[in-house]
Amino acid sequence: MPKIVDHEQRREELAAAVWRLASRDGLDAVTIRAVSAEAGWSTGALHHYFSDKEELLLFAFQTVADRVGRRVATAREESRDPLELARALLAIGLPLDDERRDETRVWFAFLGLALTRPPLARAQRLAYDQWRRIVADALRDAQQRGDIDAEVGVEREAAALVALVDGLAVQASFDPGCLDVGLVDERLAGLRSAPAR
Amino acid sequence: MPKIVDHEQRREELAAAVWRLASRDGLDAVTIRAVSAEAGWSTGALHHYFSDKEELLLFAFQTVADRVGRRVATAREESRDPLELARALLAIGLPLDDERRDETRVWFAFLGLALTRPPLARAQRLAYDQWRRIVADALRDAQQRGDIDAEVGVEREAAALVALVDGLAVQASFDPGCLDVGLVDERLAGLRSAPAR
Repeated sequence: MPKIVDHEQRREELAAAVWRLASRDGLDAVTIRAVSAEAGWSTGALHHYFSDKEELLLFAFQTVADRVGRRVATAREESRDPLELARALLAIGLPLDDERRDETRVWFAFLGLALTRPPLARAQRLAYDQWRRIVADALRDAQQRGDIDAEVGVEREAAALVALVDGLAVQASFDPGCLDVGLVDERLAGLRSAPAR
Repeated sequence: MPKIVDHEQRREELAAAVWRLASRDGLDAVTIRAVSAEAGWSTGALHHYFSDKEELLLFAFQTVADRVGRRVATAREESRDPLELARALLAIGLPLDDERRDETRVWFAFLGLALTRPPLARAQRLAYDQWRRIVADALRDAQQRGDIDAEVGVEREAAALVALVDGLAVQASFDPGCLDVGLVDERLAGLRSAPAR
């Protein structure tokens, strides 16, 4: 029987191997050699997908971004109203369980690499643009229903909330005990009466 | 004339070389070999200071932390009242000029490395504990003077402000145009009337 190579399935195998390596050993462990060993592929086979380390790192970032994208879809399905959706979208960035702890730690690990890698910096910028936009959209929907104050500037408030969540996640990445989700909830609750303009 | 080796001066030379490398080329460029070349030392001389890459990275982190410590001292000297001091202490974490841009980028680059290096994670935790504490102290002083509402919980407010600043800095590290310092000022202004408990 001839081998049937399903391109999509092979990409997912690779993504899973990259994710296991990155979450277990950090991004400096994500090399062509290590990924081929982890996936059980030859390095030659890997070179069909990535010509160099830079492409492999972009793929690794996309792997984490895809995990986050699936959480966004779930939040949309499960939230009963726009304010609950905004909270769920923000909670995606908080290390509230082991999986999200791994995700945020690997996510932030890319910051250091982006310093000298413009394509990675661009991918991160787009990811944050999108995050702020979907949170702002949820806040705008909440505002139209009268669930938050009409004076709230939803774009800036989304930027403040995403920054707050990100800052909490940064610190929780090396100090899990300091994560105070109440700070996010209090800021959301404050939108009913105390607007950011 | 015999060589007079001033230990402190040599450490500062090393710190300067590490800083130039890290801010220019990223932390993955900070190796024993590269630092010795940058400082104009032999790798053997460097091994008197660091037995391995891990010790070199801790030294590099300390180099950035020392730069931040000098900014804290300046903020204390120059601030005219506690609320202005709180703002100045927070602004240390914001990439408002080229130097702080380099500092925050290198600072965040350590996040990824700490994932698999407990001594680095511990150093980061201590640095943030201290940052939150000095901001909380400044807010407490402001509260005692009646400059902010008596109901504000200064510890939690300091945690929220530091997280907000850190989150803004994360995003500004790859997207300088998105830095909105007004979000910090508005939160500080809100402490006169709208407390976080």
